[in-house]
Amino acid sequence: MEKEYAIGIDIGGTNTVFGIVDHRGDTLYRGAISSRKYEQVEDYIQELYEALQPAIDQVGGIQTIKGIGVGAPNGNYYSGMIEYAPNLIWKGVIPISRLMTEKFSIPAALTNDANAAAVGEMMYGAAKGMKDFIMITLGTGVGSGIVANGHLIYGHDGFAGELGHTMIIPNGRLHQGTGMHGSLESYASATGVAYTAKEFLEQRPEQPSLLRNYPVEEINSKVVYDCAKQGDAMAIEVYEFTGEILGMALANFVMFSSPEAIILFGGMTKAGDLILKPTREHMEKNLLPIFQNKVKLLFSELKESDAAILGASALVWDLKE
Amino acid sequence: MEKEYAIGIDIGGTNTVFGIVDHRGDTLYRGAISSRKYEQVEDYIQELYEALQPAIDQVGGIQTIKGIGVGAPNGNYYSGMIEYAPNLIWKGVIPISRLMTEKFSIPAALTNDANAAAVGEMMYGAAKGMKDFIMITLGTGVGSGIVANGHLIYGHDGFAGELGHTMIIPNGRLHQGTGMHGSLESYASATGVAYTAKEFLEQRPEQPSLLRNYPVEEINSKVVYDCAKQGDAMAIEVYEFTGEILGMALANFVMFSSPEAIILFGGMTKAGDLILKPTREHMEKNLLPIFQNKVKLLFSELKESDAAILGASALVWDLKE
Repeated sequence: MEKEYAIGIDIGGTNTVFGIVDHRGDTLYRGAISSRKYEQVEDYIQELYEALQPAIDQVGGIQTIKGIGVGAPNGNYYSGMIEYAPNLIWKGVIPISRLMTEKFSIPAALTNDANAAAVGEMMYGAAKGMKDFIMITLGTGVGSGIVANGHLIYGHDGFAGELGHTMIIPNGRLHQGTGMHGSLESYASATGVAYTAKEFLEQRPEQPSLLRNYPVEEINSKVVYDCAKQGDAMAIEVYEFTGEILGMALANFVMFSSPEAIILFGGMTKAGDLILKPTREHMEKNLLPIFQNKVKLLFSELKESDAAILGASALVWDLKE
Repeated sequence: MEKEYAIGIDIGGTNTVFGIVDHRGDTLYRGAISSRKYEQVEDYIQELYEALQPAIDQVGGIQTIKGIGVGAPNGNYYSGMIEYAPNLIWKGVIPISRLMTEKFSIPAALTNDANAAAVGEMMYGAAKGMKDFIMITLGTGVGSGIVANGHLIYGHDGFAGELGHTMIIPNGRLHQGTGMHGSLESYASATGVAYTAKEFLEQRPEQPSLLRNYPVEEINSKVVYDCAKQGDAMAIEVYEFTGEILGMALANFVMFSSPEAIILFGGMTKAGDLILKPTREHMEKNLLPIFQNKVKLLFSELKESDAAILGASALVWDLKE
């Protein structure tokens, strides 16, 4: 029987989304489980296995599926292992490809979640036809996938493209997960946005804000978004500050690989112009003239979960029989 | 007659070095002229033409030479033009490939000077056999050439690899040439080192230093080097400060493309461990654990002028007849 389907799995810091994809890139089935519920990765994979069974049966059983493609933070394409991912609950080195193969009895391949999203975007989304672009995922963390000369940059060891951990503000904000100071992720992630909001509230006791209607411990990026949408000045300024940092970082990335476009992806992009405008302004401001007004700053054209599922599933078609 | 030679030309901010290279990478002839003497680029090319004539005659005339490869700051591989190079005296857009071809009557190709050096290093130097490395040139300015998957990253428009202009210190030191604040080049270039020394002298009127034996306007990177070699504490600290900034920058670059090695090249590397030790220390300190103690930080193994000449000449072998 021809193996005409691939499973695509995107492991995020909070949730895992998965789907069954055909050769044309149509996602036939989608599902999601929590990435945080099980401390033992084996238990997590068991739940994933059970969640996928009905869909696998529906497409004609495991024998119709060529393999599993997995996108995960710090997922190493070369080794098939997730290595020391600060935003996942499983610490150390997780041989995820091997565990998947053992559980599902089909081959598995792994890459960085943002690399997977970049491939999805290149095949089916806003980067279709582009040979040089950077994908930035703005979610619980900040990830990235870099395409140059039409190929993902994996680097010497498979770990290229950790732009969320580049340092933007020397001696800046502490990142709880990594212990680093001033990294992009500590500002431009959903976590960073919530942190900035709390910082503003504390630093400016005199400034009124809708954010003050919430107990401090309940302030998250969604609350900031809701308040900004209602015109709250402080919440809007949280996005302006976030865009300033993100824009400075993007300018540095442009001077590295001079991409045709930067594609922003993930939960934070729901904020639309609230985040896009200040980001673009500060990116341009920090670029050498030869780079100015050239780089397209775009939102992903794929549904948030789809790009990563599609990109991860694309790994499968390259698997050896 | 077989065209068995190539001319390699490296245009630096201060000097231009050139040579005639054979297929094996042996440089048969070397020479140099000033890059600053002529405000009109045509006059500069005339002097270059005259300086090369004796060597061209020696190898059997222009008919034995396949073409000219040029490395220059902001040299664009795609267009053959030098575009708005802040460290050259010719402003705007200079169609250097066309001017060379018109003068010498043989084909010419252009790339970024640091890209040329990277190719030279990959073919004949410390990066031999490497597929992923970054070349950083520390001279009058700071340039870079990035190799990933065995190929130079040119980017969408040919301008990739301007790492000297990435911003390391927000609102930091003003770069006179670009008007940008806090870029790597404003600290880690020869110009930056001299500036740091002057800043230290002014900020610490009470601290004795050999640097005080020089009139302020005569302090340059060579003076700082000489004083540091004699054990002068302030001059040594100038290198420590420079290495701190450079190390932070290199950490960011590693998290971008995860290279096997970073090769340092150019006049500043004469300082040896004075610059290498603090750079390595601060690079490691700013890396995520998955990147630590993996990246080789090396000095170029080629003579300063040779890598760029060899790399530039290598462009010629790919030229269409």
